[in-house]
Amino acid sequence: MRFPGAHILSVTQFERADVERIFEVADSMRPYAHRERMTKVLDGAILGNMFFEPSTRTRVSFGCAFNLLGGEVRETTDIKASSLTKGESLYDTGRVMSGYSDIIVMRHPQAGSVAEFAKASRVPVLNAGDGPNEHPSQALLDLYTIKKELKSRQQTIDGMHIAMIGDLKHGRTVHSLSKLVSLYKKVKFTLISPRELAMPAGIVEDLRRCGHEVVETEDMESGLVSNDIVYLTRIQEERFASKPEADLYRGRFRLNQSIYTQYCQPNTVIMHPLPRDSRDDANELDNDLNQHPSLAIFRQTDNGVLVRMALFALTLDVCEQIDKSSREVNWYTERRF
Amino acid sequence: MRFPGAHILSVTQFERADVERIFEVADSMRPYAHRERMTKVLDGAILGNMFFEPSTRTRVSFGCAFNLLGGEVRETTDIKASSLTKGESLYDTGRVMSGYSDIIVMRHPQAGSVAEFAKASRVPVLNAGDGPNEHPSQALLDLYTIKKELKSRQQTIDGMHIAMIGDLKHGRTVHSLSKLVSLYKKVKFTLISPRELAMPAGIVEDLRRCGHEVVETEDMESGLVSNDIVYLTRIQEERFASKPEADLYRGRFRLNQSIYTQYCQPNTVIMHPLPRDSRDDANELDNDLNQHPSLAIFRQTDNGVLVRMALFALTLDVCEQIDKSSREVNWYTERRF
Amino acid sequence: MRFPGAHILSVTQFERADVERIFEVADSMRPYAHRERMTKVLDGAILGNMFFEPSTRTRVSFGCAFNLLGGEVRETTDIKASSLTKGESLYDTGRVMSGYSDIIVMRHPQAGSVAEFAKASRVPVLNAGDGPNEHPSQALLDLYTIKKELKSRQQTIDGMHIAMIGDLKHGRTVHSLSKLVSLYKKVKFTLISPRELAMPAGIVEDLRRCGHEVVETEDMESGLVSNDIVYLTRIQEERFASKPEADLYRGRFRLNQSIYTQYCQPNTVIMHPLPRDSRDDANELDNDLNQHPSLAIFRQTDNGVLVRMALFALTLDVCEQIDKSSREVNWYTERRF
Repeated sequence: MRFPGAHILSVTQFERADVERIFEVADSMRPYAHRERMTKVLDGAILGNMFFEPSTRTRVSFGCAFNLLGGEVRETTDIKASSLTKGESLYDTGRVMSGYSDIIVMRHPQAGSVAEFAKASRVPVLNAGDGPNEHPSQALLDLYTIKKELKSRQQTIDGMHIAMIGDLKHGRTVHSLSKLVSLYKKVKFTLISPRELAMPAGIVEDLRRCGHEVVETEDMESGLVSNDIVYLTRIQEERFASKPEADLYRGRFRLNQSIYTQYCQPNTVIMHPLPRDSRDDANELDNDLNQHPSLAIFRQTDNGVLVRMALFALTLDVCEQIDKSSREVNWYTERRF
Repeated sequence: MRFPGAHILSVTQFERADVERIFEVADSMRPYAHRERMTKVLDGAILGNMFFEPSTRTRVSFGCAFNLLGGEVRETTDIKASSLTKGESLYDTGRVMSGYSDIIVMRHPQAGSVAEFAKASRVPVLNAGDGPNEHPSQALLDLYTIKKELKSRQQTIDGMHIAMIGDLKHGRTVHSLSKLVSLYKKVKFTLISPRELAMPAGIVEDLRRCGHEVVETEDMESGLVSNDIVYLTRIQEERFASKPEADLYRGRFRLNQSIYTQYCQPNTVIMHPLPRDSRDDANELDNDLNQHPSLAIFRQTDNGVLVRMALFALTLDVCEQIDKSSREVNWYTERRF
Repeated sequence: MRFPGAHILSVTQFERADVERIFEVADSMRPYAHRERMTKVLDGAILGNMFFEPSTRTRVSFGCAFNLLGGEVRETTDIKASSLTKGESLYDTGRVMSGYSDIIVMRHPQAGSVAEFAKASRVPVLNAGDGPNEHPSQALLDLYTIKKELKSRQQTIDGMHIAMIGDLKHGRTVHSLSKLVSLYKKVKFTLISPRELAMPAGIVEDLRRCGHEVVETEDMESGLVSNDIVYLTRIQEERFASKPEADLYRGRFRLNQSIYTQYCQPNTVIMHPLPRDSRDDANELDNDLNQHPSLAIFRQTDNGVLVRMALFALTLDVCEQIDKSSREVNWYTERRF
């Protein structure tokens, strides 16, 4: 695909070369995100960070990524504060808001809403989550993390073994990640979930059609064996009909130090899209693994900044200008990474 | 009036020369808003964007206008988060908040509140809407749009024919716009509304006293004939005693492609303060006109940025410095206007 | 203490020399806060302004202080929008958010929460209020104001007489201020409150142990006599079991022009942490003193910006670089101070 001016709406718009290009640019962002150097390449540019659904992590991550490139951020955080509640169409909102900024990041609870908004927008739109549908930057940061973690073990995404665990029915992150991974070769997926929360059949079929091996199981212990990556998810309570229904599954699959030691091969990378639910009745990923060197969950969120910087740099076409506008950082930056 | 350091609280504070000066500065903002060039003239300045009532469009428009001049924006979006709910006076709030920024934009649900706040403020205050009372930047952007649209037809505000349609009783935008237009000469106003939602008599009298012609009617078809501008408004449901009462009027006056073709003279400019209510039972301005070249509604919101940039530049007295602090834009800007 | 990279969590972490150092840096911020000059010393740095409890004043004050040093601000204003409500631990939130910015300011309703968050953070964290517990920047700005006000009267904190009035039980500002003042010598405290809302005994004991004189009384008139400073507080209704219980005390101690003239010695400095409750049934500090030259309440909030700039400059270690990155202000700045 051609990045300058493009909307980023779905992982399905990428070919493998596009993903590799994003990762290459993300790599080049490392000195800026790590505060070894700073850049003002987007000095004067404005991001419209439009969140029509509660979010702190993703919203702040996108906003900081834009600031790290030198740009300004205008935000909205509340759907109630918006003209959408006065009967305005997404078309009108898109046309109007796109007159205010150079690029827009948008989250909205309704599937397809961001694409509809993008049709009317005169500036690039990045989908930051449209309800249960897509969240492409999360899938990209997950895959980017997988690539970096495997590389430090002299492995590649091609040929890797990955287990996905938990609520595979509602978790849009595992859906999007699966679609992205399907661009690679000969991956083995072990999908561990209650039968009622299994990965949608269409996604499983697509993976097999692309030549990947898929094993589905309800038995976590057997499923954990011989993976390079285990990817845990939270029970998506907000997508169940009721809390009691969600409670049926909460706490059923848990990873902690003793289970990890007993079943996982050494150095298996532990991932989670976060937030993890650390309340006693859930606790799908125990705090006793917090110091484990293979726990990659905080490297995931750190990598999110790199990937989002890359998406901004690519769609606004400034990749080649970053280094020449860079300089040293003059404030205290120790104790960071 | 003298702009540097002034509060902008009401359209009634302007003489015609002031309005023309604002429009002249707004014109000079075009290359910056359109991203042909950028300026950092307000680099280091801080806007306090204080919204004590929900708003996305106006808030983001003001914020982006300030960013486009190179300044920083601090915001508040929620009255519940404010000390006003702990019994603090507007005087105290004004004194305190004016110690934090170089200029303040304020919206508040209560008529007169912004003026009261401004009395205590040590920096310029721009009224972004005080309940049903005033919203001067909206009236200015409407009149600025009228001027530009007419100019492209070799016409002027002096002598124009304008129809205002809908809820003329509650719509503060038509009130303020009428007051501004009254500074010009020999305008013909056709006011189309249900009798119960007619323009306040005081405003009509003022227009006539200033030598303008005013026709009031409940018949849209006859009222639409021979105008240069038709200005539609939404039924302001939130200002009615109840939703059923608002429903009596909703959907009564609608403009769409076929009505436009049948009754309006060719090239009549179509305006609306937005948001328009696109739900089936309202739909005062149909989407089938979206591609019509005379539909100026999105040019209105784009012009809002220019006018707000002009108000900042005038009150902070930087008009003469903008061009010399400007430079080229280095990121992707195609597909914008 | 060593400031670069430090968390600022409690007034108890300071020695007198630390407080004096903060005040010295705050003094050096005056030309920048007063807009005589501007600095971009933190150009490119990002503040995460994390408010998990409603606040306008403190949030905007911190944000503007960071902008005044040239940095960018990302914010969160709503606990409901946060992952904390999905069962995320403060540890996870701290680890994640600290990957997004160079420094974090945090307010949270729960005592101890900010310290817990700081344990996981890889960047400095400044406590902007953790429920009833601590609010160190407020205590610092109060003491800084006391120092400046007394200095203009050729007095010092050592040896001063200060009266604290109102809800001394719940007001965290009087607790923290007392602890800070106890670092100085031979202060006389007159604590005026209903017996039920008296200063906690532990704090009184600590003051006496440090050699200060403490008088506790329910009689305002006698207590007001012969002070250099009177510090009024609001009844902290939100910390009472019920509104009727708070109503028992509201309005009991009030300062106005006639009481001030009758009981206070001339030039007694009047302070209040703000917001003051100006409703008729409370009105602990009357508006008829608004023009009194000894009313320091708005100088307090103005000083808050200086003190917060100092905390940022010290923890990010840029104090020595500020002047060399400074330049003249080019916009309208009259009518400010």
